[in-house]
Amino acid sequence: MSDGKKPKAERRPRAETPRGFRDYFGAEVTARRDMLAAITDVYHRYGFDPLETSAVETVEALGKFLPDLDRPNEGVFGWQENEGESDQTGGDWLALRYDLTAPLARVAAQYRNDLPTPYRRYAFGPVWRNEKPGPGRFRQFYQCDADTVGAASVAADAEICAMLADALEAAGIERGDYVIKVNNRKVLDGIMECIGLLDPENVDFKANERGIAVRAIDKIDRLGQSGVEQLLTAGRKDESGDFTDGAGLEYLQAQWVTTVLKQRLEDNAATIAGLRSHLSKSPRGMEGINELEEIAELLSAQGYGPDRIILDPGVVRGLGYYTGPVYEAELTFEILDEKGRKRQFGSVAGGGRYDDLVKRFTGQAVPATGVSIGVDRLLAALAAKGRGAAVSAGPVVVTVMDRDRMADYMSMVGELRAAGIRAEVYLGNPKQFGNQLKYADKRASPIAVIQGGDETAKGTVVLKDLILGSQIAQNATLEEWKDRPAQVEVPRGDLVAAVQKMLGGWK
Amino acid sequence: MSDGKKPKAERRPRAETPRGFRDYFGAEVTARRDMLAAITDVYHRYGFDPLETSAVETVEALGKFLPDLDRPNEGVFGWQENEGESDQTGGDWLALRYDLTAPLARVAAQYRNDLPTPYRRYAFGPVWRNEKPGPGRFRQFYQCDADTVGAASVAADAEICAMLADALEAAGIERGDYVIKVNNRKVLDGIMECIGLLDPENVDFKANERGIAVRAIDKIDRLGQSGVEQLLTAGRKDESGDFTDGAGLEYLQAQWVTTVLKQRLEDNAATIAGLRSHLSKSPRGMEGINELEEIAELLSAQGYGPDRIILDPGVVRGLGYYTGPVYEAELTFEILDEKGRKRQFGSVAGGGRYDDLVKRFTGQAVPATGVSIGVDRLLAALAAKGRGAAVSAGPVVVTVMDRDRMADYMSMVGELRAAGIRAEVYLGNPKQFGNQLKYADKRASPIAVIQGGDETAKGTVVLKDLILGSQIAQNATLEEWKDRPAQVEVPRGDLVAAVQKMLGGWK
Repeated sequence: MSDGKKPKAERRPRAETPRGFRDYFGAEVTARRDMLAAITDVYHRYGFDPLETSAVETVEALGKFLPDLDRPNEGVFGWQENEGESDQTGGDWLALRYDLTAPLARVAAQYRNDLPTPYRRYAFGPVWRNEKPGPGRFRQFYQCDADTVGAASVAADAEICAMLADALEAAGIERGDYVIKVNNRKVLDGIMECIGLLDPENVDFKANERGIAVRAIDKIDRLGQSGVEQLLTAGRKDESGDFTDGAGLEYLQAQWVTTVLKQRLEDNAATIAGLRSHLSKSPRGMEGINELEEIAELLSAQGYGPDRIILDPGVVRGLGYYTGPVYEAELTFEILDEKGRKRQFGSVAGGGRYDDLVKRFTGQAVPATGVSIGVDRLLAALAAKGRGAAVSAGPVVVTVMDRDRMADYMSMVGELRAAGIRAEVYLGNPKQFGNQLKYADKRASPIAVIQGGDETAKGTVVLKDLILGSQIAQNATLEEWKDRPAQVEVPRGDLVAAVQKMLGGWK
Repeated sequence: MSDGKKPKAERRPRAETPRGFRDYFGAEVTARRDMLAAITDVYHRYGFDPLETSAVETVEALGKFLPDLDRPNEGVFGWQENEGESDQTGGDWLALRYDLTAPLARVAAQYRNDLPTPYRRYAFGPVWRNEKPGPGRFRQFYQCDADTVGAASVAADAEICAMLADALEAAGIERGDYVIKVNNRKVLDGIMECIGLLDPENVDFKANERGIAVRAIDKIDRLGQSGVEQLLTAGRKDESGDFTDGAGLEYLQAQWVTTVLKQRLEDNAATIAGLRSHLSKSPRGMEGINELEEIAELLSAQGYGPDRIILDPGVVRGLGYYTGPVYEAELTFEILDEKGRKRQFGSVAGGGRYDDLVKRFTGQAVPATGVSIGVDRLLAALAAKGRGAAVSAGPVVVTVMDRDRMADYMSMVGELRAAGIRAEVYLGNPKQFGNQLKYADKRASPIAVIQGGDETAKGTVVLKDLILGSQIAQNATLEEWKDRPAQVEVPRGDLVAAVQKMLGGWK
C-alpha cells in the first residue's frame, strides 16, 4: 500500500479446500505417518536407501507417460517459468510430479556416476494428477515406492515381490487378506503373437486390435470368460447399452485366449506347465514363462508360496512402459461400497520391470524394476475393514478457575509434560466453566484437572475422570465402575503421580 | 500413437533437477525425518493436533501476504485451472502454498463450527517460493509449525515460546546454543508513536518514514547503534557506496530510539522497567509492555528464564500481519561461512500473534498465535556444527559366487532380514567379484557374506568384516585389531548368529 493506491473493495475470499483436494485431521495424519514408517522400515531392512526429490520437475524430464498426453500440461499441474512476462522467450515448463518413478529415472540418469549399481532406492510422498475429481478420487495422494535400478536379473523382481508381501503385512494387512499376482509382459506378447496380433519385426502391426485385446484381458476378473470372448471377437454391449468394439478374432482364437488365462492355478509349477503347453510357438512367450518360473522358484526358496504370491497370466497393468515381469497386490477381503453392496477392494499396489525409462535421458538401456504402494487406498481399505486409525488420546486438560492464577496452571501442565504426559491448560475464555468441560470432551481428554479457590487454600487439586464419565453416560448401570471413583482430590504435590495412576487404570 | 501420426524426432530430455530445487539422498532424508519426529513429538505433548492440508490452495485463499505481490502468481508457483482451453471463462487460479499459516487460516475459517476452540494444531511439510534461487536458497523447503487459533490470552504466546525451546532441544540444539527473543508489535508501535511516526487515528500517516524506521531497527544487530542512527536520520552509505534513505528524524530522537533498543537486559524484569520508563507516553506501547511482562512471568513460573527466552525490543519479524507478541529463535554459536569467516548462524524459527488472518474469510476477528521452525535451516546449522546426520549403516551384502545358486543367496538374506538385520543380495552382474566388493564399500556395508563352491561343499559361509578392512586401510599398523579376525568361516547354520556377533563387535 506504500504506492498510495487505494485498495479496491474486495469480496471476502472463500474458505474452501480446492476442488479435488482434501484436508486430513488428527488421527488421519498420524495413521498415514505410521503406515509410511512401517512400510519404509521394511524397505530399509531390504537394503533400500531413501531418496527425496522435490515436488516439481521439468515437464521435459517427466515425459509423456500419462495416458492421452498431447499437451505438456495435460494430466499434470504445470506452468511456465516467468509466465506472465511480456516476452515469452523464457522459461522451462515445470509441473508437479504425477508419480515417483519418473523422478527416479531422472535421478538415475543425472547421478549415474555417483550412485551404486544396482541402486536400490525407496521414496514416498504426495503425487498430483490433474484429473476430474470424483467420489473418493483425489488430485493429490500418497505413494510409497521401492525400485532397483541397474539389475537385469529377475532376482530383483522376485525380491520386490517378497518385500511387497512383507510391507503389506507390516502395514497391517493380515496374511490371507492379500495376494500378489505376478505376470510377464512377454507372456502377454506371446499370447498376442499366437493369435496373430503381434509381429516382433513390426511394432505398428495390428497395434489397434492388440490394444483392444490387451484391455479385454485386463477385464477378465470383472467381465468373466464370455465377456472377454465378446471383446476379443465382434465386440460387446454392456448393461447400459454402450457398445465396445471387438478385436475381430475368430471365436476359437478367443476361446484359446481365455483358456490360457485359466492357467492361473493354485500351484505355480502347474501354471508354468500350463502356459508352456500353450505358448510353445512363441519364443518371446517362452522367455517370459522361464522368467516367471525363476521368480516363483526364488520366492518359494524363501517361503513365499502361492498363498501370498501367485502367477497370473491375466495381470496386465496399465502403464505402457513395462517390459518384463509385472506384479499387482490385491486385497482379497470384501467390503461394502457406498451403496452397501459387497465388493472386492481390489488393487492397492503394483509395479514391474521398465527397462527403457532411464534410456530416455542417456540413450543407454538401464534395467529397472519397482513397486508403488497406494498408501491412501491402503488406509481406506483398513478403515473399510474396521481397522482404521483409533482416535488418538487427547491431552489432560488443566482448567482455569481463576484467570489471575494462569502461572500456577501452566506450572501444572509443565510438570505433566516433563513426565511425558500430553497435557495443556485451557486457553479459551474461562468464564463459562461448562465450556471448558465441553472443550475437554471435544478433545477426547482423559482427565480434567481442577483447582479452584477451595483447593488452592487446602493445597489440593481435583482430577475428574472423563473416560469414566463418558462410559457412565453411555451405560445406565454403574456396576462395572462402582469401585472406581469418577473424581479424586489429591495434594498438589501428588498431581503427576495421581494423573499417571488414573491414566494407568484404563490401560 | 494410435492416431497413426509419426512421433517427431525428439532430442533427449535433460536429466536435471529444476533450477532452485534439490534432491536429498539417504541420511539427508532420514535426518530430516528424525528431526520432524522429534519436534512434532514435543508439539503433541503440548496438546497440539496434526493437520495436513494439500500442497495446492486457491490463490484467493492464500491471499497476498508475500511481499511485493501485485499479480496473483508472483512469489508463488501458480496456474489457472483449465489453462490452455480455448475459452478462458474457466477455472480458479491455484498455487502451491508458500507457508503453512495461510492454509491454517483457511481451515480455521472453513471448519470453524467443528473444530475445538481454542484449536491447537501442528503441521509440517514442504512450502514453495517462486523466488530467484541463490546459494543455499531453495524454492522448496520444509517448515514445521504450531499455532493456537482462538486464544486471545498471551498465555498462548508464552506456551508457544516454551514449546519452541523444548522443540529446539529435542531437535538437538543444546541449551545455551540458542536464545528465543520476544518482543511485541505494540512496543514497536509505541516507539513509533513517541518519535512522531505513528498516529493511532490515521493508518497512512508517515507510513513511508515508519517503514524506514522499522527496517532500521530490524538491523540493529548487524549495523550497530551508529548505523541505525544514520538510517533513522539522514540516511546511510554502506561499504559498497550504496546510499539508503533515512527516516528524517532529529539526531536526539534517533538516539532515544537506540537507547530504548538497549533495554534488552539480562534480566527480563529490568527490561520491562527500562521500557516502561521510556514509553510511558504511549498507551499502546504500555499495553505491549504489560503483555511482555505477563509472558515473562508465565515463562519464569515454568522455569524458562532469560538464558532460554529473553525480551528484546529490537525484534521486528518481517511479515506485516503480526499484531501483538512476536518471537524469534536464534542460534548463538558461530559457524564458518563459505569463505571461512566466522559468523552467527542467525534465525531458525519465528512467529507471533496474528489476529486478522482468519477475519479475511469470515469478517470476524479470531485471535491466533504460532511459530514456524525452518527445519532445513536447522539441519544446516547442526551440520555446520559437525552434528549432522551420521551416514546410515549400510546393509550386509551377500555376494553372488555362482549365478545358478541365487535361491540359496536369497535364503540367506531372508534369514538375516527376518532377524531384523539390514541385508541384501548383490543384484548386479556378478562376473567381476571385485565389483561386488566395490559395491559393498559404496553402500558402507559392514559385512560381506561369501559362499563359493568350496564353502558350499563344506556347508560353510565366509564373513568378511568390511569395517575392519577399511580401518586397516586407513591405518598402517594392525596392532589394535590383532585379536579381531578380518574374516571368519562359520557353518551355514550359524550365519545369523555370526553376523550378529560381528555387528555387535563394533557397537
